[in-house]
Amino acid sequence: MINQDTIVALATPSGAGAISIIRISGTDAISVANTVFKSVKDKDLLKQKSHTLHLGHIVDDKKTLDQVLVSVFKGPNSYTGENTIEISCHGSTYIQQQIIQLLLRKGCRMANAGEFTLRAFLNGKLDLSQAEAVADLISSDNEASHQIAMQQMRGGFSNEIAKLREELLNFASLIELELDFAEEDVEFADRTQFHELLNRIEFVLKRLIDSFAVGNVIKNGIPVAIVGEPNVGKSTLLNALLNEERAIVSEIAGTTRDTIEDELVIGGIGFRFIDTAGIRETIDVVESIGIQKTFEKIEQAQVVLYLFDGLKFKTSSSEFVIEIEKIKNKFPLKPLVVIANKKDLLTNAEIENLKSQIPNILLLSAKEKIGVEDLKQQLLSFVNTGALRNNETIVTNTRHYDSLLKALEEIQKVKFGLEINLSSDLMAIDIREALYQFGLITGQVTNDELLGNIFANFCIGK
Amino acid sequence: MINQDTIVALATPSGAGAISIIRISGTDAISVANTVFKSVKDKDLLKQKSHTLHLGHIVDDKKTLDQVLVSVFKGPNSYTGENTIEISCHGSTYIQQQIIQLLLRKGCRMANAGEFTLRAFLNGKLDLSQAEAVADLISSDNEASHQIAMQQMRGGFSNEIAKLREELLNFASLIELELDFAEEDVEFADRTQFHELLNRIEFVLKRLIDSFAVGNVIKNGIPVAIVGEPNVGKSTLLNALLNEERAIVSEIAGTTRDTIEDELVIGGIGFRFIDTAGIRETIDVVESIGIQKTFEKIEQAQVVLYLFDGLKFKTSSSEFVIEIEKIKNKFPLKPLVVIANKKDLLTNAEIENLKSQIPNILLLSAKEKIGVEDLKQQLLSFVNTGALRNNETIVTNTRHYDSLLKALEEIQKVKFGLEINLSSDLMAIDIREALYQFGLITGQVTNDELLGNIFANFCIGK
Repeated sequence: MINQDTIVALATPSGAGAISIIRISGTDAISVANTVFKSVKDKDLLKQKSHTLHLGHIVDDKKTLDQVLVSVFKGPNSYTGENTIEISCHGSTYIQQQIIQLLLRKGCRMANAGEFTLRAFLNGKLDLSQAEAVADLISSDNEASHQIAMQQMRGGFSNEIAKLREELLNFASLIELELDFAEEDVEFADRTQFHELLNRIEFVLKRLIDSFAVGNVIKNGIPVAIVGEPNVGKSTLLNALLNEERAIVSEIAGTTRDTIEDELVIGGIGFRFIDTAGIRETIDVVESIGIQKTFEKIEQAQVVLYLFDGLKFKTSSSEFVIEIEKIKNKFPLKPLVVIANKKDLLTNAEIENLKSQIPNILLLSAKEKIGVEDLKQQLLSFVNTGALRNNETIVTNTRHYDSLLKALEEIQKVKFGLEINLSSDLMAIDIREALYQFGLITGQVTNDELLGNIFANFCIGK
Repeated sequence: MINQDTIVALATPSGAGAISIIRISGTDAISVANTVFKSVKDKDLLKQKSHTLHLGHIVDDKKTLDQVLVSVFKGPNSYTGENTIEISCHGSTYIQQQIIQLLLRKGCRMANAGEFTLRAFLNGKLDLSQAEAVADLISSDNEASHQIAMQQMRGGFSNEIAKLREELLNFASLIELELDFAEEDVEFADRTQFHELLNRIEFVLKRLIDSFAVGNVIKNGIPVAIVGEPNVGKSTLLNALLNEERAIVSEIAGTTRDTIEDELVIGGIGFRFIDTAGIRETIDVVESIGIQKTFEKIEQAQVVLYLFDGLKFKTSSSEFVIEIEKIKNKFPLKPLVVIANKKDLLTNAEIENLKSQIPNILLLSAKEKIGVEDLKQQLLSFVNTGALRNNETIVTNTRHYDSLLKALEEIQKVKFGLEINLSSDLMAIDIREALYQFGLITGQVTNDELLGNIFANFCIGK
């Protein structure tokens, strides 16, 4: 599985900047770099110590491509565990291309997405869930997702799984041993201790599985749909919400403008606001794919904000109550925040009237930015970040979640088998299956397809 | 002028990628980095050798921000000549911001645009024209501009100027010495040798000044206007031209789509194709600003491609000759390439007929991509790249060009003075002015405003 060839890729974001880094990894990385590197004192990169930096030029035959700094890392003390060179060149797209093309001619191969990290995994520098955390870390764009990725990369998550797997493996071998002495009817594995271990594993698995709901939301941002009739102030509300953090928002890569209005980080948690503008006008054109999609988006939302024009119901608020009931029936399973806009144009009496009719109504003025902070706090309160605050392990990865679910199922089978005094040979099968699922998480059990799927999601150069 | 404070900036392009680099420079750079860096063996960065790399974590109080590699450079052996730290972190925008904000809290200051290179210049690591070449190098997007910037960065250009300045300075001091002995009427400076030097300087200056025309075109790309009636196939021709290099084109930053159609590199030289679509339809609306702009763009073009529908004149090519004359009168000073499109729909006889009427006509089929390569070769032939091929010094910078022109003027005054036996005191004034202009190019003479103007055009982090 391990390719010994030398791979090369741009490791910094593409585009022009002060510095770009081109990364080379493989047994021959240093000797390949040596053929194109010329320094004033004619340094031989092969003779340099690991973790040292060298100033010189990248030279293509007699043509100088750039003045560069070369970092030398000798395997196994590198990110990939192999010999590694990092060329720090001037950040021109043209220069990047020229240097990479030169290295390709010198025998390097373009790295696949995530191939550096794949090699780090295959060389035992990281376990699989740590490798996955590297990708999460790079895409983290707020405090919560960053914290979870950091924790996972430092091994908190997989250490716990690996430790349980080892304990389980211990019992598994004792039970498999019993099979060898089947005719003597001995019990090497203490059934009480084993039952206690299974309970402990079950408890941990359930906690990790439960954490996925929070983890998933934190990783991807909490989808919030802003719903309401046209011209009640939805766009103004969105602008008011985004106002202070718009600069950060613009830096988030991959924000698709067509369906998602924008992202906002509140208290370290990402929220995705979903555009549902104009849903009322077109509600009758049932077959339209566009509307179908809008409704699908609302279905995906974890929170629905229903925005009303406060002026419309200031006198006849009983109509308002009926209207709210209609909305609640439309989205029966969603946390719904009813918001009356244009608070600035209402009298105190009218405000009190609305409040008495709808107990949890939130009054604000999107235009005057009154009450927007209250809405943000209310959105935050929907997120159960208890686990996050207590620094508990949180599962964010769908692959881990699936394996945890399957492992739990197998552990519960084993536990049931133990309780009904199932024979050792049948129990051993279930234990093996549970061990397999545990191993998939940390990468102690892998296959090419699994690895292919995981690392294909990485960026090239990592 | 030299600030001793510690500056920090992101040095890699913004956005997410595998790796990002945060650069810190200043007397306290290493000690500041040391306060936020924690490694397994509790390494003290202050005790590490220059040009070494260290694996560890960036820690904000007890919170770990990222696992990083830290490069240590001790002044004067660094880019800026000061103590420098480069933090190689995971390429998440969030992590970049967190680390930079932490360093700002620890006493660093955000670097201004080009401030690292400004410090390198002020600390004598680069002369001014070399510093300017750094910015050119980063923005270079084809072989020619890259080669010129490399040459300038390696000092080829300013070495020549600095050497001439030194020789001139030598004579200047001898002539100034004569002033001290004015009453004795001695001549310390050999007038024949001085005249020879002035001739040599004049020759070099004229050569450098002449090279600017080529240099400017190479640096900015050669503007080519595609002109013609609507629907003769201008867009198809542009697509045919761009076809094979479109991928590279999309990577060039700052390609403004509104006035420039697209850029294309042919034989290492950049060409900018200018959209003049629809110029015929609106030619009567003289006052329109839009048309005015289109004509201004055509004025700026170095080459005009006039595209005709070959079918239109296949029988009556005498009309065609009249039409061509009209076009030539419209752009009397531009190299004009007359192109008949739709060659694939013409018979051999019709083709021969057109060729006999207009000797230099180029026949092609944009749709079938016939003859497009010939057009590219013809475009290349317009560029005088003799100087480039002979590895001569080429001036690309307007500031240098201006200084060279002024220096030439002063040198010619000195030469004239010498020829009419001007008194030493008056000649000394002209020599000083010439020396000043020479010094402005290499930065031996500077002022804050000049430096401010130059480095403001750099990207932050360089």
